[in-house]
Amino acid sequence: MIIVMEAGASPAALDHVVRHVERLGLRPHVIVGTERTVVAVVGDERGAASSGLETLPGVASVLPILAPYKVASREVRAEPTVVQARSLVVGGGRVGVIAGPCSVESRDQIVETARAVRDAGATGLRGGAFKPRTSPYSFQGLKERGLELLAEAREATGLAIVTEVVAPEDVALVGRYADVLQVGARNMQNYRLLEAVGRTRLPVLLKRGPAATVEELLLAAEYILDGGNHAVMLCERGIRTFESHTRFTLPLATVPWLQARTHLPVVVDPSHGTGHAALVEPMAAASVAAGADGLIVEVHPDPAKAASDGAQTLDVAGFRRMMEVCRRVAAAVGREIG
Amino acid sequence: MIIVMEAGASPAALDHVVRHVERLGLRPHVIVGTERTVVAVVGDERGAASSGLETLPGVASVLPILAPYKVASREVRAEPTVVQARSLVVGGGRVGVIAGPCSVESRDQIVETARAVRDAGATGLRGGAFKPRTSPYSFQGLKERGLELLAEAREATGLAIVTEVVAPEDVALVGRYADVLQVGARNMQNYRLLEAVGRTRLPVLLKRGPAATVEELLLAAEYILDGGNHAVMLCERGIRTFESHTRFTLPLATVPWLQARTHLPVVVDPSHGTGHAALVEPMAAASVAAGADGLIVEVHPDPAKAASDGAQTLDVAGFRRMMEVCRRVAAAVGREIG
Amino acid sequence: MIIVMEAGASPAALDHVVRHVERLGLRPHVIVGTERTVVAVVGDERGAASSGLETLPGVASVLPILAPYKVASREVRAEPTVVQARSLVVGGGRVGVIAGPCSVESRDQIVETARAVRDAGATGLRGGAFKPRTSPYSFQGLKERGLELLAEAREATGLAIVTEVVAPEDVALVGRYADVLQVGARNMQNYRLLEAVGRTRLPVLLKRGPAATVEELLLAAEYILDGGNHAVMLCERGIRTFESHTRFTLPLATVPWLQARTHLPVVVDPSHGTGHAALVEPMAAASVAAGADGLIVEVHPDPAKAASDGAQTLDVAGFRRMMEVCRRVAAAVGREIG
Amino acid sequence: MIIVMEAGASPAALDHVVRHVERLGLRPHVIVGTERTVVAVVGDERGAASSGLETLPGVASVLPILAPYKVASREVRAEPTVVQARSLVVGGGRVGVIAGPCSVESRDQIVETARAVRDAGATGLRGGAFKPRTSPYSFQGLKERGLELLAEAREATGLAIVTEVVAPEDVALVGRYADVLQVGARNMQNYRLLEAVGRTRLPVLLKRGPAATVEELLLAAEYILDGGNHAVMLCERGIRTFESHTRFTLPLATVPWLQARTHLPVVVDPSHGTGHAALVEPMAAASVAAGADGLIVEVHPDPAKAASDGAQTLDVAGFRRMMEVCRRVAAAVGREIG
Repeated sequence: MIIVMEAGASPAALDHVVRHVERLGLRPHVIVGTERTVVAVVGDERGAASSGLETLPGVASVLPILAPYKVASREVRAEPTVVQARSLVVGGGRVGVIAGPCSVESRDQIVETARAVRDAGATGLRGGAFKPRTSPYSFQGLKERGLELLAEAREATGLAIVTEVVAPEDVALVGRYADVLQVGARNMQNYRLLEAVGRTRLPVLLKRGPAATVEELLLAAEYILDGGNHAVMLCERGIRTFESHTRFTLPLATVPWLQARTHLPVVVDPSHGTGHAALVEPMAAASVAAGADGLIVEVHPDPAKAASDGAQTLDVAGFRRMMEVCRRVAAAVGREIG
Repeated sequence: MIIVMEAGASPAALDHVVRHVERLGLRPHVIVGTERTVVAVVGDERGAASSGLETLPGVASVLPILAPYKVASREVRAEPTVVQARSLVVGGGRVGVIAGPCSVESRDQIVETARAVRDAGATGLRGGAFKPRTSPYSFQGLKERGLELLAEAREATGLAIVTEVVAPEDVALVGRYADVLQVGARNMQNYRLLEAVGRTRLPVLLKRGPAATVEELLLAAEYILDGGNHAVMLCERGIRTFESHTRFTLPLATVPWLQARTHLPVVVDPSHGTGHAALVEPMAAASVAAGADGLIVEVHPDPAKAASDGAQTLDVAGFRRMMEVCRRVAAAVGREIG
Repeated sequence: MIIVMEAGASPAALDHVVRHVERLGLRPHVIVGTERTVVAVVGDERGAASSGLETLPGVASVLPILAPYKVASREVRAEPTVVQARSLVVGGGRVGVIAGPCSVESRDQIVETARAVRDAGATGLRGGAFKPRTSPYSFQGLKERGLELLAEAREATGLAIVTEVVAPEDVALVGRYADVLQVGARNMQNYRLLEAVGRTRLPVLLKRGPAATVEELLLAAEYILDGGNHAVMLCERGIRTFESHTRFTLPLATVPWLQARTHLPVVVDPSHGTGHAALVEPMAAASVAAGADGLIVEVHPDPAKAASDGAQTLDVAGFRRMMEVCRRVAAAVGREIG
Repeated sequence: MIIVMEAGASPAALDHVVRHVERLGLRPHVIVGTERTVVAVVGDERGAASSGLETLPGVASVLPILAPYKVASREVRAEPTVVQARSLVVGGGRVGVIAGPCSVESRDQIVETARAVRDAGATGLRGGAFKPRTSPYSFQGLKERGLELLAEAREATGLAIVTEVVAPEDVALVGRYADVLQVGARNMQNYRLLEAVGRTRLPVLLKRGPAATVEELLLAAEYILDGGNHAVMLCERGIRTFESHTRFTLPLATVPWLQARTHLPVVVDPSHGTGHAALVEPMAAASVAAGADGLIVEVHPDPAKAASDGAQTLDVAGFRRMMEVCRRVAAAVGREIG
């Protein structure tokens, strides 16, 4: 880290900082500038022990140098991680597509959707059984019955099941039905849940929280990797900004930025990322062009009657059109869809 | 809700919308404007069943009218809720002050801090035993040993213990030691946890998530209230914005806005809200001036050596100065500190 | 507009609102709901005269219905506007590409760059002569000398010149050299400047301000259109959010959202939108996939020596690679580059 | 500045960086860490010449050390600047209060308001004659006639006139009537305007742009200071964030943060900062408690009929109550209002 001293910091203050750094087991290098003195600190600065340095007299600011994540880093593993679950392949030049309704509502709904999205080229089926909802008065999902219906849909189509798990105590139950465990945006920093899915060997789709920095997303992934589960997909699904014409702001530069720093594949969710069905196809195409390793998209046979998230849900015809465009764009950037 | 039709929407599209609204059990009123037609919908629009209306042909947008929260609302309960735990009183003209270290580190540290903050006027003691940390490589707290030390500090000082619970399965354990359960910002939408603390009868301090709207904060409170636990304090601790000179942006207008809409008391955390010790005193004073019902502040005998959050932590002398200023400001706005 | 009354609003308060609306020359429709009463107001609500309605007793909130922009709207003109300047064509299925250095530095630099970007497929040349700089201590541009050099580069290549004008009093001067007047992000709400470029008949590239909503961008365009200049290109160049790994956050959903509501073409700036050369190619490709009508990209023969914005500037080889990818992606979405 | 090299950067890359730094006239210090090598650069790094360093092979990132502003800095002038205009005093323990309508509408309106706010303790009168409006269809102000009416109000009350100037060519005209020139938020980076007001010797109230960082605000002030005009007041009026229950988010931590770094006084605008009349009093009180050197507040005899900004405007009784509370809070923090 770099410790920047105040303009008029006394020699005693500098000395105090130097000794404090040494006590942390790190090596300080003092560099006297024309206007400021800085102390460059050598050694592993990660961990909280240095967080109080800013409060020492004469210290103006403390700048970290090392990225705080390790195992997720390209420096630890150079080749890209490819995540597989049945026919779903995400990464390594293959763009996996996970599609399906926001919520599992009935056998007919989920099996019909599964067949339709598979026929259009999807290789994963999404569908919520345990639904985290902003309001306690909203539909909370069919729970285990929903998982059973997802399993039936897999039976009927061969698609890999991607479904959310919202609490550590549900991991075993959901894991009996799911091919991929989804950790939702609201739970990105639910560390107990991250540890629980890290103890499984099921692939995990980890969604970025709407206020999370990309570093925080990678650190959340570290909790899972640290448990020995290396099949982690990162998912960009939009952040909270001042924009109100879309549900969230979907920042696709996340995709190449992450891919340069981590070996984990990056999936994009253009449904939550925009909140409007009309914006899903162009943003799905844009995601593929930006290099996304996967897409997760909400599809329902009749979006106007969906139990949740109808406004951002494609119907089957819309999903088919989206897939056609994405297939051509994938080819244009040297990748393959599905 | 109000359904705004597109400028050129056909009579058939309008008719379709009207029938869809009726099927939801709501009553539509069609109003033909000079440029747009709108459908005003009468009835309880809460719940997800209407979320698909936006996808109907000819619909431009759907505007909700009713606030989505109920039990937290002033319309349900006009008089302010006062939360009490031992000598800590929050609301009703009393500004409760909860102070203490970010993490419990040792018996000496926590008991010494407890004595110092009590002597300066605090009536609650904060201290983390279970620490949710952004990085898996950071100090994770002393866990149950930390709770025991908090209990010793209570024994020594009489202060009410405010400490975070991070998972539903810990609620019973933490509840044996704590006087107030804190739900942290990262867990504001951990619904399983909200339900679990809602089943206790311990007061809850619910922190606003850094990307949460005030409506979402109130809806999170509804999960707790819905369980029958009405002793909920809302806590503003800053939101994520483009500002980087502070750790978060602390929007104090939240305080009077919430107080006009909810009977629940509103606490402010100027430590996390700013991230810098030098900004804590002015923002604590500003919070009291804005009408805050409580403060929660990080204090440590030697911030430079704190295991976490040192940069935003006051030392004991700084906390004493803060209390003096806040006491005068509280009197200026007709309130009483402590 | 829709006026939402408070839950307990008195009949007198409602009556007062109704009469106030009538005095504004608008027609009120009162709808008594189960929990709230709303007043739907018919008539042209644009203009400020209604801004005080919110302060009337018993009024909870006021929701606008009509989009505040008119001339920019698809409702006024259904077919897309195509902007042309020499060989630069933006809109109508053609994706125009404007490339060049942040600042004009010398004859060699600008002519060399112009030739290189033209050979790679660009049809417009960007280059700053009047530079608005955050710091008064930064390079402020070559001013009129820069314009002369741009004209020489046009002479040498036939490219259309796109350059920024920063003040009304410069419009005549810059207009003598430029083929397209650029209004920068900092000046998006410099109304005097918008009016001045609106009085010319030169095409205008209007950049979105980093805190501007899309409605505000369209209203800024209205100032230009209102002057009789209809050759306006809107430019998304990123917004200010909490993200710090990119210079701005580039929200590509702006492209299809705007295209559904306005006939004006939409250009994307992946250089300012990301701030990092390594992110420009993927985001340029993503922009084209999202349907952008144009790109504006910073290119310099030696970015490390650029007088400004070097970090986000492509070198010539990088621009060539970008163009190859974008050409394939454009074809994939049924468009043509250049 | 600190140049952080990539983990695997070659010795040749490091050498290239070192030579590049030397060519910029700066001195590089290479520090080889356990995981990364950094180059600490000594010398005045301000200016754009270093912006291309990031593009050199092997460079991971470049961190600035020096604050980019100079003349505004406490390091250049330690004692606080006090700005005076007639009876208005801002800074040095005096909290100046500027009050009045958003727009000047008529002689009666402005003179009546002036008398009322003076009687309540204001020492400055605000009122817009040239109004920058988001929409070209909104009321644009009375222009010079508005300035004349402001002068009449000054005649009648002795209050200092604070009014906005929106273009360099208006500075002479507005300067003939105004005691303080206001530069609005939309024009914070209108450098030509900043230079023009910098050439006058009238005090300037410089409002923060809604997407501007505090560093950018200080750099905008530098443009004015650089012209020799040292009577600059900085004004926090709220930033754009995801919050929609207030018009902007008003981050009061700006006040003490700025005061620690600049000698210029800091004024807060709780009217624009919140957008709702009901939030103005608590946020004005909070501003004073946070240490603000001044307030600027919208007041109108009949807010429901105001030509602009009615929703955030206090009536006279409301302003009087606000002043009473602020007077007590000012005393509590050792300051004096008015």
